[in-house]
Amino acid sequence: MHEYKRIGRDLVYKGSIIDYYKDTIEVANGNTVKWDFIDHHGAAAVVPVTDDGKLLMVRQYRNALDRYTLEIPAGGMNPGEDYKVAAARELEEETGYKSDELEFLIKVNTTVAFCNEEIGIYVARNLVKSEQRLDEDEYIDVVAMDVEELCNMIYEAKIKDGKTISAILAYKNKYVEKN
Amino acid sequence: MHEYKRIGRDLVYKGSIIDYYKDTIEVANGNTVKWDFIDHHGAAAVVPVTDDGKLLMVRQYRNALDRYTLEIPAGGMNPGEDYKVAAARELEEETGYKSDELEFLIKVNTTVAFCNEEIGIYVARNLVKSEQRLDEDEYIDVVAMDVEELCNMIYEAKIKDGKTISAILAYKNKYVEKN
Repeated sequence: MHEYKRIGRDLVYKGSIIDYYKDTIEVANGNTVKWDFIDHHGAAAVVPVTDDGKLLMVRQYRNALDRYTLEIPAGGMNPGEDYKVAAARELEEETGYKSDELEFLIKVNTTVAFCNEEIGIYVARNLVKSEQRLDEDEYIDVVAMDVEELCNMIYEAKIKDGKTISAILAYKNKYVEKN
Repeated sequence: MHEYKRIGRDLVYKGSIIDYYKDTIEVANGNTVKWDFIDHHGAAAVVPVTDDGKLLMVRQYRNALDRYTLEIPAGGMNPGEDYKVAAARELEEETGYKSDELEFLIKVNTTVAFCNEEIGIYVARNLVKSEQRLDEDEYIDVVAMDVEELCNMIYEAKIKDGKTISAILAYKNKYVEKN
């Protein structure tokens, strides 16, 4: 298929966690179009499962939405870092629990129309108490919740974060006993 | 909770489907931080269910990933448009089928760390043949697929689009007979 060919990518602005580009695309109909492109360095996320089957969720402020969200623990990759290593690191930093039993669940491209962000998502079991280690400007609350309650919140649009919806439903569909 | 207060939002660049801002945030520890913010006008998406229980998927080029993706039909909102109206419109434009039986499924914030994009996702049944109406520079293939096959592709990381993963798993969890 050759309906589209990218013939240019020009930096418009370097941000802190993303960079903004304009792509130039040659279309099969002969047109040349300019499309937005946001470069993101990737992220890792984790579904932390407690011994009694609850999931550890984090509550934090999101300036893009100007509100607090309930999400699975997640964070940006360090340069050269593996998704699984990053997921284990973010688990410990954000929740104060660590695990050496991480299993791959899914990969998510968050918003394919304009951004290359990819999140590697893992399930973590056998959680062991450690220490929360937040960044200087990071405030995060941790809460253990039932899978069924989380699913209800998804259908009531009380949980809207895409990686969190994908991860919880993928975990439930794969691992939780069918009703 | 008042760990964060947004005290500024400055436009950096107006794009075609997104605009780039820098937010200024006052943190409870006394710091002032500058965080990225991408303004997006929202989108609607649809899980189109055929009479024999398959889902209509679209395959299209995504410049941000420089590859073709398999996604549920979706598109940006027109100004003042309702999510359900937009979902019905995108269904017909992208697949060539229309439906007057759309039911709310979930809402997705695609990437909460820097963007306010929200997608309203609906399930469409009783599909009736109409005409595909693509934009001038839009090339889209439509394919009907089994839910189980789509789920397998999610766990094999062959489907990675976030709204598509969330929507397919939310549809399956709510409507498809348990194994």
